Amino acid sequence: MAQQNAISPTRAENFPEWYQQVIKAADMAENSEVRGSMVIKPWGYAIWELIQRDLDQRFKDTGHTNAYFPLLIPLSYLEKEAEHAEGFATECAVVTHHRLEAQKDESTGKTRMIPTGELTEPYVIRPTSETIIGAAFARWTSSYRDLPLKINQWCNVMRWEMRPRIFLRTAEFLWQEGHTAHETAEEAIEETHTMHKVYEEFQRDVLAVPTIPGEKTEAERFPGAVQTFTVEAMVQDRKAIQAGTSHFLGQNFAKSQNICFAGRDNTQQFAWTSSWGVSTRMIGTLIMMHSDDDGLVCPPRVAPQQVVIIPVTPKEDSRQAIIDHCQALAATLRQQSFHGYPVRVIVDTRDIGGGAKKWEWIKKGVPVRIEIGPRDLDKGSVCLQRRDQATNEKSFIPESELIDSCTKLLQDIQDSLLQRAIAFRDSHIQKASSLAELEANFSTEGDADWLLVPWDGSPDEEEELAKRLRISIRCIPQGELGTAEPAPCILTGRMTTRRVLWARSY
Amino acid sequence: MAQQNAISPTRAENFPEWYQQVIKAADMAENSEVRGSMVIKPWGYAIWELIQRDLDQRFKDTGHTNAYFPLLIPLSYLEKEAEHAEGFATECAVVTHHRLEAQKDESTGKTRMIPTGELTEPYVIRPTSETIIGAAFARWTSSYRDLPLKINQWCNVMRWEMRPRIFLRTAEFLWQEGHTAHETAEEAIEETHTMHKVYEEFQRDVLAVPTIPGEKTEAERFPGAVQTFTVEAMVQDRKAIQAGTSHFLGQNFAKSQNICFAGRDNTQQFAWTSSWGVSTRMIGTLIMMHSDDDGLVCPPRVAPQQVVIIPVTPKEDSRQAIIDHCQALAATLRQQSFHGYPVRVIVDTRDIGGGAKKWEWIKKGVPVRIEIGPRDLDKGSVCLQRRDQATNEKSFIPESELIDSCTKLLQDIQDSLLQRAIAFRDSHIQKASSLAELEANFSTEGDADWLLVPWDGSPDEEEELAKRLRISIRCIPQGELGTAEPAPCILTGRMTTRRVLWARSY
Repeated sequence: MAQQNAISPTRAENFPEWYQQVIKAADMAENSEVRGSMVIKPWGYAIWELIQRDLDQRFKDTGHTNAYFPLLIPLSYLEKEAEHAEGFATECAVVTHHRLEAQKDESTGKTRMIPTGELTEPYVIRPTSETIIGAAFARWTSSYRDLPLKINQWCNVMRWEMRPRIFLRTAEFLWQEGHTAHETAEEAIEETHTMHKVYEEFQRDVLAVPTIPGEKTEAERFPGAVQTFTVEAMVQDRKAIQAGTSHFLGQNFAKSQNICFAGRDNTQQFAWTSSWGVSTRMIGTLIMMHSDDDGLVCPPRVAPQQVVIIPVTPKEDSRQAIIDHCQALAATLRQQSFHGYPVRVIVDTRDIGGGAKKWEWIKKGVPVRIEIGPRDLDKGSVCLQRRDQATNEKSFIPESELIDSCTKLLQDIQDSLLQRAIAFRDSHIQKASSLAELEANFSTEGDADWLLVPWDGSPDEEEELAKRLRISIRCIPQGELGTAEPAPCILTGRMTTRRVLWARSY
Repeated sequence: MAQQNAISPTRAENFPEWYQQVIKAADMAENSEVRGSMVIKPWGYAIWELIQRDLDQRFKDTGHTNAYFPLLIPLSYLEKEAEHAEGFATECAVVTHHRLEAQKDESTGKTRMIPTGELTEPYVIRPTSETIIGAAFARWTSSYRDLPLKINQWCNVMRWEMRPRIFLRTAEFLWQEGHTAHETAEEAIEETHTMHKVYEEFQRDVLAVPTIPGEKTEAERFPGAVQTFTVEAMVQDRKAIQAGTSHFLGQNFAKSQNICFAGRDNTQQFAWTSSWGVSTRMIGTLIMMHSDDDGLVCPPRVAPQQVVIIPVTPKEDSRQAIIDHCQALAATLRQQSFHGYPVRVIVDTRDIGGGAKKWEWIKKGVPVRIEIGPRDLDKGSVCLQRRDQATNEKSFIPESELIDSCTKLLQDIQDSLLQRAIAFRDSHIQKASSLAELEANFSTEGDADWLLVPWDGSPDEEEELAKRLRISIRCIPQGELGTAEPAPCILTGRMTTRRVLWARSY
């Protein structure tokens, strides 16, 4: 039987448009009149708050504290680190004036506001804060005893994107940026690895997003970094999304900003720094990873509501009893703890049709839907539906069983989403050993698998190939994927043990 | 015996400079090279996080959800509400370009970044978000069923202050801004009052800051508001600080931004809106309210650490045993809950002198200091010192007593700070019935009491008097202070039941 889907077009019909429609149907965010800037609506923002709460604890558990630095960066700061400045120059919002003057247009009678009070030195709105935080670190560091500095900032940043896409690529976005300074290179590298691991674990365990951890090639590095580590996610159209990066900055920023200290041997030394960040982009990844043709599928750990209880009240005389029963059940479930927080339960008592109500929660991706009607009340049962299963699948279970197994059920949904995503990813990473295979794989317009290939090309050769096939090296993978016998590079033919992952990406 | 104070100058010597030194000594924040923008350091930011956590729950408990709106506001939005635009025009950061171009100076060899990519329509960095959120509300509202909208946003805002003062008045600051839209004027007014009350209770119960709640006069209203309600705090130099405002906006913004809906009678109507906000300014208020000549005094509910345990280890052989004992005590105390969260305890095991260590925590305002040395270990006792008492006061109590009474002790300190602040405030509000008394009260440069006077002057008369004496009407107080028999206005002589509070202010 053909079933009507809630989202049109479907993923198969038009993936990018399906993505926009899922966001709209779940009421998560919308474009604003401000070029490239989105409005994050309550349902989308609630997911961000849950992401923040979990990540923030991980940062604190690894010894970081939060702080806040200025939004505006003097142009002269950017000029200090040339590579960094060039990397962000094409996408900077620049503040040049600090006042407005009202001018009345005599013919129309309308008032217009004109910028005035020109600044001697313009500012850019932070695209990232290495320079402004580096300036603070330089003030705070005089001896090795002042190190390490391990700071995180939650804030908005701005990069003037020419082709914005909601959550994935917007002019303004929310993120966290960690910045640390250390006495030795080893400590800074260890920090970079630690945060890389934190990102991998967080995405796997909380967002149910499996990622491939690895290092970026020189061509793909953060501007000014010595090494960039990334976690790369494969979403349902097999495109890659860079889901979080951590950078070992060596002494590059320390030298350009004079972050120096008297060492244990009393010599003056430059600090070794790192930075790392994830953003609201993760919400886009999460949507593209799990959602289906009926809308958002939200992993329980970041679902604004984990359980929705819908009272089914066909008769007026049993209506209040059913609602009361639902409220009592909700209160019972809320006393349970899922990963340290009360289970989030909502009872939907709105006076609208049951079908519309049910579909609204499907589209919003709530993991568990419970319906309770007059007969369930009599029998002490509930009708249970899982968002990770087909919408017409339902099971009738005793209410006591629901109460006993609620958190287990949530974890089961969380795990099933992760397993499904891992299986999908693993079935779409192929090995290749020749340029011809690579070209064949990426020759068509449609979805394409990721290819793991031996690679020893130069940055220029990499960029040329990337441009020609409109693909990129996502990373030099760590672990099993990255461990291999010497084989000829698909481009140069030189023997190499290095493996890289080529893919299309967002 | 004359005691040396940790902060120089003292409050009596130079209050504004004392304030800066307290912030520095507690390592809370510092000025940055960006004009008027501060860096909020970890100790200061931790206080803000605790403020956020508590307030956020109060907003959610009163039916609000969080969302996020663009940082940049098109100039045309500001032009729509003339009074609002004029109110903020003199202090707006304006974005006029969206790119930088690197230009090499041939003579110096240095690279300079030049703004390029001029925008057709400039943007201002939000000084407040009525206009941009109003535009979203207009999109979201088509029927009375879509109302009320009750949204809050945590974000940064920017007002180009000419005379910045850290926390109290900075170009960029962090705040929350609530924005709501309602079907009727009554509902919007009720919302305004509800949030006014939330602010009063939060400041009283959490910051130990007693405030005078009241309404602003027409001259002091938020630009574009019909009514502005405020909570006014008196700090130790008797100046007033506006510690939070909520505004009933009538239909002013709804009309200029077309927030309209089909009503129950099917006619097209404009919504009634409100807005309300508090900011990092509260941290400045808290410092000026409670701190002393030894540094910050932090109310327990927002203290980043509530208890510091200092191991006193004069002999190497008992050193580890004492440290282990301190850690175990900390773990025990952390199992206790103070207002819903584990007691925040730190054990300071750093290898620096005991005196320096102790004074560092005094200056940081930690409510309870515990010292444990070899003799205490033998006797099962601890040395207890309270930050709200003199630094040389100490009591030796059994450790079991500390464990039993820890949360009671914290609440006792919280209460004592509030009571002290209330007593100070009440002893410095005087009644006056003539202009001569007002002039005499504010004629000197030093600290001056607040004066409650009968007032029926016009906005122009108010502004003239305010300017001449460099004072302002803080509010028309609610409650007992504002209830009075008719008396002649001190300026016009007209009989009035209205009382207003005149004061110097930050």
